[in-house]
Amino acid sequence: MKILIDAMGGDHAPHEIIKGTLNALKQKHFKAVFFGDENLIDAELSHFDYKESEVEIVHTTEVIGNDESPALAIRRKKDSSIVKALQMLNEGKADGFISAGSTGALLAGGMVIVKRLKTIQRAALVSVYPTMEGMSLIVDAGANADINAETLFQFAQMASKYYENIFEVRNPKVGLLNIGTEKAKGNQLVLNTYPILKESNLNFIGNVEAREVPYGMADIVVTDGFTGNVVLKLTEGMAFAMVDRFKAVLLKNLKTKIAAAMLKSSLKEMKEGLDYREYGAVPLLGLNAPVFKAHGSSDAFAIENGIYSMLKFIEKDVINQLRKTLMEDE
Amino acid sequence: MKILIDAMGGDHAPHEIIKGTLNALKQKHFKAVFFGDENLIDAELSHFDYKESEVEIVHTTEVIGNDESPALAIRRKKDSSIVKALQMLNEGKADGFISAGSTGALLAGGMVIVKRLKTIQRAALVSVYPTMEGMSLIVDAGANADINAETLFQFAQMASKYYENIFEVRNPKVGLLNIGTEKAKGNQLVLNTYPILKESNLNFIGNVEAREVPYGMADIVVTDGFTGNVVLKLTEGMAFAMVDRFKAVLLKNLKTKIAAAMLKSSLKEMKEGLDYREYGAVPLLGLNAPVFKAHGSSDAFAIENGIYSMLKFIEKDVINQLRKTLMEDE
Repeated sequence: MKILIDAMGGDHAPHEIIKGTLNALKQKHFKAVFFGDENLIDAELSHFDYKESEVEIVHTTEVIGNDESPALAIRRKKDSSIVKALQMLNEGKADGFISAGSTGALLAGGMVIVKRLKTIQRAALVSVYPTMEGMSLIVDAGANADINAETLFQFAQMASKYYENIFEVRNPKVGLLNIGTEKAKGNQLVLNTYPILKESNLNFIGNVEAREVPYGMADIVVTDGFTGNVVLKLTEGMAFAMVDRFKAVLLKNLKTKIAAAMLKSSLKEMKEGLDYREYGAVPLLGLNAPVFKAHGSSDAFAIENGIYSMLKFIEKDVINQLRKTLMEDE
Repeated sequence: MKILIDAMGGDHAPHEIIKGTLNALKQKHFKAVFFGDENLIDAELSHFDYKESEVEIVHTTEVIGNDESPALAIRRKKDSSIVKALQMLNEGKADGFISAGSTGALLAGGMVIVKRLKTIQRAALVSVYPTMEGMSLIVDAGANADINAETLFQFAQMASKYYENIFEVRNPKVGLLNIGTEKAKGNQLVLNTYPILKESNLNFIGNVEAREVPYGMADIVVTDGFTGNVVLKLTEGMAFAMVDRFKAVLLKNLKTKIAAAMLKSSLKEMKEGLDYREYGAVPLLGLNAPVFKAHGSSDAFAIENGIYSMLKFIEKDVINQLRKTLMEDE
């Protein structure tokens, strides 16, 4: 198994990216190929113990920033870590690529270089969402801000198949994120998507309000990439804000401080259940090869887990399963 | 001061609506006019003590449901509580109207019967949002799912003026809800709205990510009604889910239960800070008269507070201030 890693992407690159990858190499058997500035990568590698036979470097001279136009950057920066890695992946010389860099560039590059599955219009970003019940998926999670109903339906199909594989649940519940439970509610995209989902083979449970999302009412929450990204980031913000409120309660006076000490280990467990880094990275579904996007603020722990998620995705051959699902639907 | 009250709107009508109104009458001086089924209202009133001179009933025979097409319902149900009350408001015979009924019907009825301020394209639903720092406003909060950039800019103008009045803060910070802080991020609506806000007289602080909303980074969070409603409902859902998680921690074993008992009063305070009912009801901005929308699940406490919010709005003559702001901008 050969995994390509963008050593230049994300807020903590290359240090945390390399550290996380080397930690994963201690647990799983694969070959890691780092893409980026050779000198920087070598300097980082020198801090760690690792088997030289398991690590390779492909030197690249350019980096695509978050503030660049993704389509332009992919065309112009031919010697960037993202373009070079996607090319090697497309040539069949590797099994997957993970990056904490620009989502837009990863999507644009994926569509242009690795290309889409037959019949697929756009690649979807699928995010794992921890709920009170377990795990949901949000699709699209931020890659496609403006889309149409047919594309959104394809996203729901792909996410449903992905859920079946990752969580080993048949016919997961698919919900359409809306601002009311009634059929006639919502914006034009939602109104157009509802009947398509209703008539499909998916286990469609109808409209789901945002209030129900943290309770895991739907296994798959279908929405445009703008709203999906807002849902993910607001969830994160609210979790932090609530923990801050709770902390303020615990630090209020001597009595509450004693109580806080008594709760310490239980609170730690709760915090771990909210840690998005547990899931590390998420796939761009609809491409011909595994491309995973890690959070821009990923640390080594997130990258390590992201690699595990991708290894599972590759072992389960999810992409061929998506191919079959989409063919059946034709 | 004469206040019109929809006795038929909301999940707990008419009981909680009437109870909340009578509680408000004990605190503030105004005349309450209930719209709805006279027999039902009389039966409810018989349970309470109140001054007969302060209460009036206008008998109506129809009710507009949440699942009806708002525009159709307003045209067809001429004898509904919403239509009758809006007509009396429009005739200048009352100072404001509050309803926990259908948002869509209230908006459609407001636009058709009470009509918009000059130059205003749509009325905005503005919601008060409790943050770690104090209060923000979300506009639009759910009335306008699909809108254009010019309308969204008008919403930002009106919400800014409203904020100045309600919270007595000059030049509140206006943020555009987006999925990244970079200027080139977002869907088409956001990309079109950014330059208009940038060039305006508003105190525009740029894009704001959903993660920052609970921390009160912007005083006014500008977004379309679909996303705005998702933000409000997800915030509510996450607050409940996090409290449930804390509760699970507190009930885990004997030690945590003792700690829970020690925290009881502090936790109660925290819960009160999260209570959306504190703000009761929110205005539809852009209409020629005060129309307030209360949450569909409003209880008496929410209705009572909603009436206080509206009384403040009327006393401050916010609508005339909006008129002036919009004229200056012409």
